[in-house]
Amino acid sequence: MSEAVPSECYPVTDRNRVKRLHERGRYDRESVHAILDGAMIAHIAYVIDGQPYCTPTAFWREGEHLYWHGSSASRMLRAQRDGLPVCLTVTHLDSLVLARSGFNHSADYRSAMCFGTARIVEEPEAKTRALDAMVDRFYPGRSADLRVSTAQEIKATMVVGMEIEEASAKVRGKGLSDEGEDMDLPIYTARYPVVQVIGAAEPCPRLPADTPVPPGLAGFTAGRRLDELMLENHRIRFGGE
Amino acid sequence: MSEAVPSECYPVTDRNRVKRLHERGRYDRESVHAILDGAMIAHIAYVIDGQPYCTPTAFWREGEHLYWHGSSASRMLRAQRDGLPVCLTVTHLDSLVLARSGFNHSADYRSAMCFGTARIVEEPEAKTRALDAMVDRFYPGRSADLRVSTAQEIKATMVVGMEIEEASAKVRGKGLSDEGEDMDLPIYTARYPVVQVIGAAEPCPRLPADTPVPPGLAGFTAGRRLDELMLENHRIRFGGE
Repeated sequence: MSEAVPSECYPVTDRNRVKRLHERGRYDRESVHAILDGAMIAHIAYVIDGQPYCTPTAFWREGEHLYWHGSSASRMLRAQRDGLPVCLTVTHLDSLVLARSGFNHSADYRSAMCFGTARIVEEPEAKTRALDAMVDRFYPGRSADLRVSTAQEIKATMVVGMEIEEASAKVRGKGLSDEGEDMDLPIYTARYPVVQVIGAAEPCPRLPADTPVPPGLAGFTAGRRLDELMLENHRIRFGGE
Repeated sequence: MSEAVPSECYPVTDRNRVKRLHERGRYDRESVHAILDGAMIAHIAYVIDGQPYCTPTAFWREGEHLYWHGSSASRMLRAQRDGLPVCLTVTHLDSLVLARSGFNHSADYRSAMCFGTARIVEEPEAKTRALDAMVDRFYPGRSADLRVSTAQEIKATMVVGMEIEEASAKVRGKGLSDEGEDMDLPIYTARYPVVQVIGAAEPCPRLPADTPVPPGLAGFTAGRRLDELMLENHRIRFGGE
């Protein structure tokens, strides 16, 4: 882990350079971080005995490190004891783009790919701190309200972390883009926005009716965009770092 | 490609067996297909020179084959000329689960992992047919309404396909699940549903005001769940195969 002040952009190498539609590529940390911090779920690619796997998991970012967790039984995590090269990708789908030609059908999206070496967080104090950070990153202040984790629960959970060695973002946000010569064709074209939203809370029926909603969950209102909520909550926990 | 009638379930091997929380695993084709067909975007893991990559892409299923496309310039697709082992994963996030302990925080989700060998669809007629199927799979009947693709457009697009060799689904849908001894703790707990929805169409401003919305897009109503719409449209195109 380098303690040097990071430069504004990730280094661009053959590994993270955006090759297809490269004009959509971005390498600045701010763009990459905003895409990561707006998400709860990432897909992680890793290799075991030459076979690629792609696993979805909840994850979070702290500075230039990414973390996720799983049971000690996980195939992926067992293979990572010695440090495993991974590619962690986050994708937000923002719209469907219906054009006048098949070729110009597209989608608006924001994605980020991060490369690094995943390692298990073994040290119990670091692990406990990471698990609290995970809860609080998604649900501000919540870890302090919960029943304290047992030693058995902490033992049964594996925390994995990686430093972001290289990363890139790829963003399309221009909506419709037909060829000039197609523009007057009488074909219905439209952009359909896509959002991921939360619904109304369904509290546990066993709760006393007067149980207050904690202040940290004030942002969890029905219809709220999940990406905006996750970004806001990340900033509450980590202060925009 | 086998023409035999497939069995109800995918074979279970060391590659596709669900190891972590194995009670959530499913291997029947119906479960796997429903998760795939409800999605537009998959994440594909592949390996080049030992390095894993995880790339998001639009994809679709036809029987036991999956297809996706990209520009001929793509790193991934160039590497696939000889057939590349891939793992294609789809994930639907259905809810956030806030429990009384950190350990029981969870999420409801449906995911599917498919293993196979990706190969480029080279033959021009098969390629053109696949690209029409892609448009029609997402937008029923639309390919017939579009400006015909040029030879140059078809040449510039690469279509990749793979047979599903093995697959598994992993589903959690039980919502809240605290330990029995935690149930009376006065801690606010709730399930927050999560849905991905489309918004109101934003038609091209260059369209004449009387341009009708094609009947195939009748399902694209504001607030519609994208997974339900995609599943419905897949069935319109492929008849529930």
